[in-house]
Amino acid sequence: MRTLIKGGTVLSSTGAILADVLVDSEHIAALSAPGIDWPDVDKTIDATGKYVLPGGIDAHTHMEMPFGGTSSHDTFETGTTAAAWGGTTTIVDFAVQAKGTTLQSTLDKWHSKADGNCAIDYAFHMIVSDVNETSLKEMQTCIDQGVNSFKMFMAYPGVFYATDGEILRAMQRAADIGGLIMMHAENGIAIDELVAQALQQGKTDPVQHGYTRPSELEGEATSRAITLAKVTRSPLYIVHLSAAEALNAVAAARNTGQNVFAETCPQYLYLSIEDLAKPDFEGSKYVASPPLRPKEHQASLWNGLRTNDLSVVSTDHCPFCFNEQKELGRGDFSKIPNGIPGVEHRMDLLHQGVVAGEISLARWVEITSTTPARMFGLYPRKGTISPGSDADIVVYDPAATQTLSVETHHMNVDYSAYEGMQITGKVDTVLSRGRIVVEGNAFHGATGHGQFLSRDLCQYLN
Amino acid sequence: MRTLIKGGTVLSSTGAILADVLVDSEHIAALSAPGIDWPDVDKTIDATGKYVLPGGIDAHTHMEMPFGGTSSHDTFETGTTAAAWGGTTTIVDFAVQAKGTTLQSTLDKWHSKADGNCAIDYAFHMIVSDVNETSLKEMQTCIDQGVNSFKMFMAYPGVFYATDGEILRAMQRAADIGGLIMMHAENGIAIDELVAQALQQGKTDPVQHGYTRPSELEGEATSRAITLAKVTRSPLYIVHLSAAEALNAVAAARNTGQNVFAETCPQYLYLSIEDLAKPDFEGSKYVASPPLRPKEHQASLWNGLRTNDLSVVSTDHCPFCFNEQKELGRGDFSKIPNGIPGVEHRMDLLHQGVVAGEISLARWVEITSTTPARMFGLYPRKGTISPGSDADIVVYDPAATQTLSVETHHMNVDYSAYEGMQITGKVDTVLSRGRIVVEGNAFHGATGHGQFLSRDLCQYLN
Amino acid sequence: MRTLIKGGTVLSSTGAILADVLVDSEHIAALSAPGIDWPDVDKTIDATGKYVLPGGIDAHTHMEMPFGGTSSHDTFETGTTAAAWGGTTTIVDFAVQAKGTTLQSTLDKWHSKADGNCAIDYAFHMIVSDVNETSLKEMQTCIDQGVNSFKMFMAYPGVFYATDGEILRAMQRAADIGGLIMMHAENGIAIDELVAQALQQGKTDPVQHGYTRPSELEGEATSRAITLAKVTRSPLYIVHLSAAEALNAVAAARNTGQNVFAETCPQYLYLSIEDLAKPDFEGSKYVASPPLRPKEHQASLWNGLRTNDLSVVSTDHCPFCFNEQKELGRGDFSKIPNGIPGVEHRMDLLHQGVVAGEISLARWVEITSTTPARMFGLYPRKGTISPGSDADIVVYDPAATQTLSVETHHMNVDYSAYEGMQITGKVDTVLSRGRIVVEGNAFHGATGHGQFLSRDLCQYLN
Amino acid sequence: MRTLIKGGTVLSSTGAILADVLVDSEHIAALSAPGIDWPDVDKTIDATGKYVLPGGIDAHTHMEMPFGGTSSHDTFETGTTAAAWGGTTTIVDFAVQAKGTTLQSTLDKWHSKADGNCAIDYAFHMIVSDVNETSLKEMQTCIDQGVNSFKMFMAYPGVFYATDGEILRAMQRAADIGGLIMMHAENGIAIDELVAQALQQGKTDPVQHGYTRPSELEGEATSRAITLAKVTRSPLYIVHLSAAEALNAVAAARNTGQNVFAETCPQYLYLSIEDLAKPDFEGSKYVASPPLRPKEHQASLWNGLRTNDLSVVSTDHCPFCFNEQKELGRGDFSKIPNGIPGVEHRMDLLHQGVVAGEISLARWVEITSTTPARMFGLYPRKGTISPGSDADIVVYDPAATQTLSVETHHMNVDYSAYEGMQITGKVDTVLSRGRIVVEGNAFHGATGHGQFLSRDLCQYLN
Repeated sequence: MRTLIKGGTVLSSTGAILADVLVDSEHIAALSAPGIDWPDVDKTIDATGKYVLPGGIDAHTHMEMPFGGTSSHDTFETGTTAAAWGGTTTIVDFAVQAKGTTLQSTLDKWHSKADGNCAIDYAFHMIVSDVNETSLKEMQTCIDQGVNSFKMFMAYPGVFYATDGEILRAMQRAADIGGLIMMHAENGIAIDELVAQALQQGKTDPVQHGYTRPSELEGEATSRAITLAKVTRSPLYIVHLSAAEALNAVAAARNTGQNVFAETCPQYLYLSIEDLAKPDFEGSKYVASPPLRPKEHQASLWNGLRTNDLSVVSTDHCPFCFNEQKELGRGDFSKIPNGIPGVEHRMDLLHQGVVAGEISLARWVEITSTTPARMFGLYPRKGTISPGSDADIVVYDPAATQTLSVETHHMNVDYSAYEGMQITGKVDTVLSRGRIVVEGNAFHGATGHGQFLSRDLCQYLN
Repeated sequence: MRTLIKGGTVLSSTGAILADVLVDSEHIAALSAPGIDWPDVDKTIDATGKYVLPGGIDAHTHMEMPFGGTSSHDTFETGTTAAAWGGTTTIVDFAVQAKGTTLQSTLDKWHSKADGNCAIDYAFHMIVSDVNETSLKEMQTCIDQGVNSFKMFMAYPGVFYATDGEILRAMQRAADIGGLIMMHAENGIAIDELVAQALQQGKTDPVQHGYTRPSELEGEATSRAITLAKVTRSPLYIVHLSAAEALNAVAAARNTGQNVFAETCPQYLYLSIEDLAKPDFEGSKYVASPPLRPKEHQASLWNGLRTNDLSVVSTDHCPFCFNEQKELGRGDFSKIPNGIPGVEHRMDLLHQGVVAGEISLARWVEITSTTPARMFGLYPRKGTISPGSDADIVVYDPAATQTLSVETHHMNVDYSAYEGMQITGKVDTVLSRGRIVVEGNAFHGATGHGQFLSRDLCQYLN
Repeated sequence: MRTLIKGGTVLSSTGAILADVLVDSEHIAALSAPGIDWPDVDKTIDATGKYVLPGGIDAHTHMEMPFGGTSSHDTFETGTTAAAWGGTTTIVDFAVQAKGTTLQSTLDKWHSKADGNCAIDYAFHMIVSDVNETSLKEMQTCIDQGVNSFKMFMAYPGVFYATDGEILRAMQRAADIGGLIMMHAENGIAIDELVAQALQQGKTDPVQHGYTRPSELEGEATSRAITLAKVTRSPLYIVHLSAAEALNAVAAARNTGQNVFAETCPQYLYLSIEDLAKPDFEGSKYVASPPLRPKEHQASLWNGLRTNDLSVVSTDHCPFCFNEQKELGRGDFSKIPNGIPGVEHRMDLLHQGVVAGEISLARWVEITSTTPARMFGLYPRKGTISPGSDADIVVYDPAATQTLSVETHHMNVDYSAYEGMQITGKVDTVLSRGRIVVEGNAFHGATGHGQFLSRDLCQYLN
Repeated sequence: MRTLIKGGTVLSSTGAILADVLVDSEHIAALSAPGIDWPDVDKTIDATGKYVLPGGIDAHTHMEMPFGGTSSHDTFETGTTAAAWGGTTTIVDFAVQAKGTTLQSTLDKWHSKADGNCAIDYAFHMIVSDVNETSLKEMQTCIDQGVNSFKMFMAYPGVFYATDGEILRAMQRAADIGGLIMMHAENGIAIDELVAQALQQGKTDPVQHGYTRPSELEGEATSRAITLAKVTRSPLYIVHLSAAEALNAVAAARNTGQNVFAETCPQYLYLSIEDLAKPDFEGSKYVASPPLRPKEHQASLWNGLRTNDLSVVSTDHCPFCFNEQKELGRGDFSKIPNGIPGVEHRMDLLHQGVVAGEISLARWVEITSTTPARMFGLYPRKGTISPGSDADIVVYDPAATQTLSVETHHMNVDYSAYEGMQITGKVDTVLSRGRIVVEGNAFHGATGHGQFLSRDLCQYLN
């Protein structure tokens, strides 16, 4: 099976060229200048006037993740299908160690959830909730199985929270064996005190979720994580950075050449604490941690995307339905399941940054695909349109328009955080490992097509 | 004429792939996965075990440049030939406006020097020495002719020096019309006072060139240029950055998202003021401005290359012979012609950074080829191995070794600044617009093969 | 003649005590606890409920200074009388070297203006407009005559402007002989270009004075002066700092321990570019350099006063009448004489900072009297209420109120920059070297009472 | 009883004057110029050629403090006597809340230890080890009893350690009621992990105490404390700052105007990790927390004293005998009682800073007496030689010399951390509340003379 994508503008992280892309079976066979004729082509996709870009990589998703007695509402099947609709052809989901269990059993569990159920390729990060001799040893085992990034939490005491001593141990281990520590950087100990005080004072609305998690406490935790990484010479990747204070800490460390990286998410670029403050419990739709920030942080984050102090945009996709799940926190904001749906919209939302002049076309591809691939050891299999790479390709129509809405989205959740938002640009065709999964506004993929990706080590380490 | 480069590891600014490269006439026709067969190939280059990378772009050279009554000793012919030997397939040389002349006559003059005499492709920056109504208008004319970067000097009063008011005017103009201001940032007014004092005190040796140009005064001028650029909203490119203080100023500005860029040169990465202090006037070989710095600056510069606060490595190639030209300054260091030869060694010297673990392979390609191409509006014609690009290609043998020496180099100058230095890696084959110019340790190029490149605008501007 | 100031709250730069102050002839003879009885007291001043503080020192005034064909409108007689009314008992005025003249002749000239004409004590700084061998030598002569601070200008090209080379030479000299370089830090070369452009575009109103002198160009010049001071190891005092950018540069240098100091002026704390924008040429009343800034700079300056990055508040008193003098610039803002009257109001205006909670009582005394005395080598003769010190004493009623107005002020100028401003606190009694010069809302001083103060070196140098 | 100190150079935090000081009973009655005659003087002290300065205030001592099963070896009697010998006339000691006890009972206990046993005046800070509703309420009670500064620990988990949530609560309370939070800022959680690892690896020598407490972890904790103080709008005082990283954090916060203060100690200015590395368990003499640092930190700390980012020098006096107490940690550095003796030498050691040109005479007085008095609400009762102040006065001979040694010191401990150090300057005479306690190299004080000082609030808060 040979497919030729013809006449398009092929995008990479450094710019655009006019070229044809030949796909042979699951891989890209060649890029060729417009004049070259290819024999034996089974199918030709006309990409004239359209962008041809490497499929998006969403390095931060939570499919069917247990949280506070419920689970995020997208399964691997529904979630990866929605991702494909939105031009994302790889997700890296988090396997979540429960206290008292091993990393291996966790990984096995997540494999059993995902394997055979994904519409696109997937990989795993490991959340280390229980730092002990066993789990530290298992970090190597995980790496051997292609899972080499380990997320820890400075928030959620009693659940995922790791002490600075535990973080230090895990970082030492990561530094030794080539792993990458990912950090949810909020000072959860101080935050929980503020939460308790708010509740005690009868302040129970969703907006309190924002007030009790001030941006300074994200900045603090980010600084602390950076210092612990410095002491242990461990690389560090800050997840879902939302606050200018945290960005400043990352930028300062990066200036010194320290191996510190950070991602932000579309919700921090487009939404704000004003959404959290919507009446009638509407604000609960926007509850995630870190919380949506005052609007002035948005300009800092866009700037960080330009300066590369923010290297990646992921979604932290973690959908909970408004009607039954978010409802759990009515009368007590601290019980609202944390998460915002987004896996389907990342490519479109970041393309708006191009339209608005915030970032260049090349940077769009870089932060949504090429850098995640390099950061998480998937390059050049993913993240580039190059001979030998997996044929994960998006044909994107920059001139099309669409309106985001729960009515039309494919995520398994009963609201859209971006309801009514007008978007310029739209995914036209999506290939996953050579298979056309989206075309002509129809889904042609298949559950089970997606394969587990055993990842190499991070390619950014100095 | 179809050439196939087969079996090599093709490098880009994001990584490495195994792929074959088909060249058709002057352009790259295709990249293909190893299995693909190409008919009608006239010549096959076996690149097995070797790197295949886009030809180097040296964005800062001075061929046959008048300076203090003499001229730099490489002509466009000898200089571009030496460049080709070293894997550089494009230079951007500086047309130098003399006071009282127009930019157009300057450009014409440089065209007459270069046209028909170059072994590789070349482009021009324009040095604006005389800011007035006419030259400000002509900046647009230059852009129309593919010369859109304008260098100014905060040093060399009475020669190239521009006042802050003149810089401001030129920057306003550049901001209006899309030009890029390049800056030699040293406080020449203060330096000239220190020089006069040294001479008055009988301090005449080459090392005084370093003592009278302290790094703080490069830092100061860099900060000042950045402020003027901020006030005028002009982009700014700092040439030949040599000092940690200057790097800090650039990094601070870049963190704010300002369009500030900087290059360094191999001599600042490998040589130091200790070379300037060599006895018997040997130090004169190392006189360039800014001067070689104390060794501790080198680590800062390597770090800047990693953090991307230094985005480009150029050579500032400006060779003067030791025996007759440098000699002009015996007894008065201020009369030593300023310049160090280097156009031939940049690719090799930076490859040592890869060998030493200072930078990655991808970064090597990025700072020597891809970024200069994007910065100076040559991408994707240059700076990448992609279909449609000019077939400027280097096959590099990472396992070969060589020793740098005046005995073996091809630059038209009677000494090597790197005499005796052991290098791992060596250029194997070089193509310029599809023509093999270096192969089998022999030169197959031709004077006049090189063409003038009309450049597009800088692709990095936010 | 023995005077006892009884029952007051004696203020110092560290706090307040209840104590009596015995003055004997020109000096303070003793401070004593409330119970102590003093015999032979000729006059007793009841200071119950009032502050007793060291007389104010205004370290930056321009009496009868030539500027653009006219002169500042206060003579030493009227200016020092107004100062006394406002609780200032020492001024340090600037002797202004004209190009082509010597420092000695300048000093002689200023002595001839001031000697015998002052109501309070006075000292001189020297403005060095003409850096050459002679004037550099004379810096020592000046120091020998008690004038050890030398002001230079980075603004006003063609008038006071010194090149960076000249500044460097003067700083080297100051570093050698213990002098203090004071700097008017604005990039006058760039500013003059902006001014010329504005005039060319027909923008002639007073507010253009502000627009053409952006705060970035004060920040830049301040940074540059700091670097030159670092290279020469010279101490540096930035006069009339007005901009947050400049303050940041000063703070950064001070953190490193460099001998850098700065003053601000009341007009930058209370007035803004909105005043410059007043219609009907009213804005001309507020033209001074640096210009009044956008309001947001005020909070930075108050903060700087708290952090001690701003150590002194002086007035830059330089009054020009609205009706005849400011008028010179109607139709061409660049011809408006630069200066704002203020010598009479400094103590009151800064006391408002105490009332508003911006600074403490002790800090009020420190920035208006004790620090200027130490900075300019007058301590402990001035700047403190201590035995042996000159009896320059202000009894201040913190509960009184007053309204600032041209109707009531004593400066020889036809407008008030603070017209109508309500003030809490008022000078009650003023002693200058033991003589009561203000009491019972009447002036009891005498022209010629004031003596020239030969100053010691700065006491702050590390 | 009237004592006249005649002919001396009276020092203050702003400079020096020639003046006589009349003491009447416990207070200073007057300062007078040299010529003034005082009747009825019972005793005259000739201070000709000597300094007369306000008695030192050591704001950080630990007399008879329980630590790890033993107690610091100076009692209030021996410790305050040694302090007096060294020119310190006030100490502020720490009452140490044990977990499960109240602040009031703690305060009562410390009163019972100190009352009637001190040779000089004393006050208390409160260490809050157990943050709960009761102790938070009792903070007000403490303030009512003149104890308004509350120390917390980010180190010593399980002993004094407070979580960030507890710190947040205490800071909120302090902000509400005018208290000052003092912080031992080291990341004890991470440190304890490093300590456990070192012991596990058989690294048991005293120098490990330094290696396991890297300066970065003091910098981190200092930053964190500053952020928590910012979030709660609480003032913050960092105790015994030892590391450049921590100083940088303090300086950055102070630049913004935040109410953050810091002290350092003589041991961090003069001793280093090289002392900790002394063989034969000698290093144990130098074990304190934070640990002695690599020498390069010393220059930063001296600089901080000049820039006022370090406002106070205290001793953290906490003596443990080498022979029996330090011995407890032989074979396990973590069991070495933490503390270095120093209360007797602070004034002398900081005078060496004057001799060496690191600080001025005025600054010597400021950091050892005036600022501690203002910081901790004792001014003007203490910290100044002013009418009405307590007659706590030191006559200091700047020309005398001495050698520090266990042979001659008066602290109740069997070693000197400064054994053999040559000192220029020596305490001559000491008055405590008017009583001569040291004179003619003899002690004339009395246990029980010292009184408890009920303190006012900090006078530095913006």
